[in-house]
Amino acid sequence: MPRTLAHKILQAATNEEIREDGQIVRCRVSMVLANDITAPLAIKSFRAMGAASVFDRDRVALVCDHFTPNKDIDSAEQVKVVRDFAERQRITHYYEGGNVGVEHALLPELGIVGPGDVVVGADSHTCTYGGLGAFATGMGSTDIAAAMALGETWFKVPPTIRVNVDGEMGNYVQGKDIMLRLIGEIGVAGALYRALEFGGPAIDALSVEGRMTIANMAIEAGGKVGLFPVDAKTIAYAEAAGRSGCEEMVPDPGAHYERVVDIDVTGMEPQVACPHLPDNVKPVSVVTGVKVHQAVIGSCTNGRIEDMREAAAVLKGRKVARSVRCIVLPATPGIWRQALKEGLIAIFMDAGCVVGPPTCGPCLGGHMGILAGGERAIATTNRNFRGRMGSLESEVYLANPAVAAASAVAGEILHPAKL
Amino acid sequence: MPRTLAHKILQAATNEEIREDGQIVRCRVSMVLANDITAPLAIKSFRAMGAASVFDRDRVALVCDHFTPNKDIDSAEQVKVVRDFAERQRITHYYEGGNVGVEHALLPELGIVGPGDVVVGADSHTCTYGGLGAFATGMGSTDIAAAMALGETWFKVPPTIRVNVDGEMGNYVQGKDIMLRLIGEIGVAGALYRALEFGGPAIDALSVEGRMTIANMAIEAGGKVGLFPVDAKTIAYAEAAGRSGCEEMVPDPGAHYERVVDIDVTGMEPQVACPHLPDNVKPVSVVTGVKVHQAVIGSCTNGRIEDMREAAAVLKGRKVARSVRCIVLPATPGIWRQALKEGLIAIFMDAGCVVGPPTCGPCLGGHMGILAGGERAIATTNRNFRGRMGSLESEVYLANPAVAAASAVAGEILHPAKL
Repeated sequence: MPRTLAHKILQAATNEEIREDGQIVRCRVSMVLANDITAPLAIKSFRAMGAASVFDRDRVALVCDHFTPNKDIDSAEQVKVVRDFAERQRITHYYEGGNVGVEHALLPELGIVGPGDVVVGADSHTCTYGGLGAFATGMGSTDIAAAMALGETWFKVPPTIRVNVDGEMGNYVQGKDIMLRLIGEIGVAGALYRALEFGGPAIDALSVEGRMTIANMAIEAGGKVGLFPVDAKTIAYAEAAGRSGCEEMVPDPGAHYERVVDIDVTGMEPQVACPHLPDNVKPVSVVTGVKVHQAVIGSCTNGRIEDMREAAAVLKGRKVARSVRCIVLPATPGIWRQALKEGLIAIFMDAGCVVGPPTCGPCLGGHMGILAGGERAIATTNRNFRGRMGSLESEVYLANPAVAAASAVAGEILHPAKL
Repeated sequence: MPRTLAHKILQAATNEEIREDGQIVRCRVSMVLANDITAPLAIKSFRAMGAASVFDRDRVALVCDHFTPNKDIDSAEQVKVVRDFAERQRITHYYEGGNVGVEHALLPELGIVGPGDVVVGADSHTCTYGGLGAFATGMGSTDIAAAMALGETWFKVPPTIRVNVDGEMGNYVQGKDIMLRLIGEIGVAGALYRALEFGGPAIDALSVEGRMTIANMAIEAGGKVGLFPVDAKTIAYAEAAGRSGCEEMVPDPGAHYERVVDIDVTGMEPQVACPHLPDNVKPVSVVTGVKVHQAVIGSCTNGRIEDMREAAAVLKGRKVARSVRCIVLPATPGIWRQALKEGLIAIFMDAGCVVGPPTCGPCLGGHMGILAGGERAIATTNRNFRGRMGSLESEVYLANPAVAAASAVAGEILHPAKL
């Protein structure tokens, strides 16, 4: 039977034979992830289950990235719970303080997740690793506790929606725009419990980072996973991160797709998701001139070095508008140091940005850039639900880093080419 | 009548003749300051008084530095109140976002405060500017509202305690240590409503920044102000910040002092203030080996470029202990950019520090590094009251930047020379 990427990866992780979508299968997991918000809940469940130790101390990652550097006493106590657990269980991949990065940028960078893996995480954006060809998805903390104890979990094999992306992308357009456009077309429930599988010439041309940006937002269309083929680029990325033995992987010709969506990116403008849903997507020209009070450049969606470069290219020699706080958060210490080495941090500072440490921070209304009532942000993050970044009376527009940077300079939403 | 520095500065700002300590005088103010915590209260009082406009839009400084980048919705709403007021009143010196620095580092750097000024601020560490020879002190928000409206305020002329500092400071010893030692000697109420007036060869030898560190902590001894003579160094600093017409100023020979304290710094070890009061001071050798979970290098006390250099000199080529979060917060965008240019930011990042934007943050338990119960920090900040940096069950040790950096590397309190 010809297989989709989803079927291929799950099949390699289970002893059962996958015959159809909707089948329940028990799979081995390559990595189990939780963060400073979800790990304390998972640890509580882990204990309630009577579990004594994690299945493999090298295959659990605990990343304290959401409310750190600790925003308040509660968040400090949460981190302490995770730290104590990590010490007792001698968890290899425990990250806080100067080692911490936004989990979904950090784990690929360190080679902790990679092609062909099955990864479950107590965080909805775990699907990011699909960009590397991993079946990676978010789960509740109780399921994560079970996976931490057992090293396996169950899945309902998802039907696959195939997304063919053709054409050539113009300047100031990147993976984010492909994904916003797709979400705009299929809606926030368009891929509910489906695997999204991406392919086509524009995907082949895309960097691994750009693919991770797309995979990251699979959940914003309701997707279980967002999967990409493993090609030479993926393998080069994974090997640079310390992985070995990676093999190319493509879906079988003739594999069954529940639906096929075709997108042509030629001539596509940068896309902007307007309040208050990620599927309220418009080309940037339609929302040009909307005043913004804050720009956020970072997050698990767009906080990678490529994103920093794109933002810096726009900000170089320019100044952030006096009325705007432009908050730049490189997503990992590695990205931060690389941005420093390339002079990007200097560009951000000279432009009048606020450069912060790696943290999820403002994306989820956590800290480090929260909005008051009546304020509006343009952000490279992934969600713009009402109140997501602060007050219920605030608004978030989602865009790529170049558009966010241009809008920070203009004080209103603007196509970077129009600066 | 021979005059102390306090008498001299106040005399120049009042039409009344100052004849004795304890006299109530009405003085013109050079600058009125408030921040994101206190300005909203002051603005409320300002309106309740029926005031229509500030006395001089160039002489009010509003600095949103405490809970920014906005840690939550409440802090975002506070900043919005301040921003709206600043816009309506066309306040020249309004700072937020990429322009903001910790107020007491920012105002001297920008020349907004300087020698001979009378400065009142709705922040207890306003006394910092005494390092420049300004009569500068903290007040409640209601008094600040009145000063914003009237451009004047009243003072009870403080008696002066003269502090003569003699001797030569060794390596890894700086202004912070002189001040901790003094507070250790006279106690947290030792200078209650007194002016502290510093002088002597060790003060002459000290940088203006080191003097500001000392003046900053005058309030930790209960002092109204901490005053330094204006010498060639002060004038050079002020002129570099854009001030002109500064003149040297020393107390008159024979001026009346309520008390004289003599300190000899020769052979003095770095000093550490142990929990839970700034006067619980011990030489670092006595507390060596006390385990720390966090180090904070920054704040209005020790977040200046000199402090960054001292910390970087210790951290260069070394690694922060895995068990420690070492949070470095250069106090202003200017200091941050200078540290970047000098390669200090790279040293911090390579050592595994968390480098954050300018903010008061953890010093006051605000955000960006809060402690859980049972955690202990070493900090270059100014206060170690119970719960100051987080949980009531946490502890803060105060020290200079070199000691904080060495302790971050060792994972326990350590003299930098012992690394």
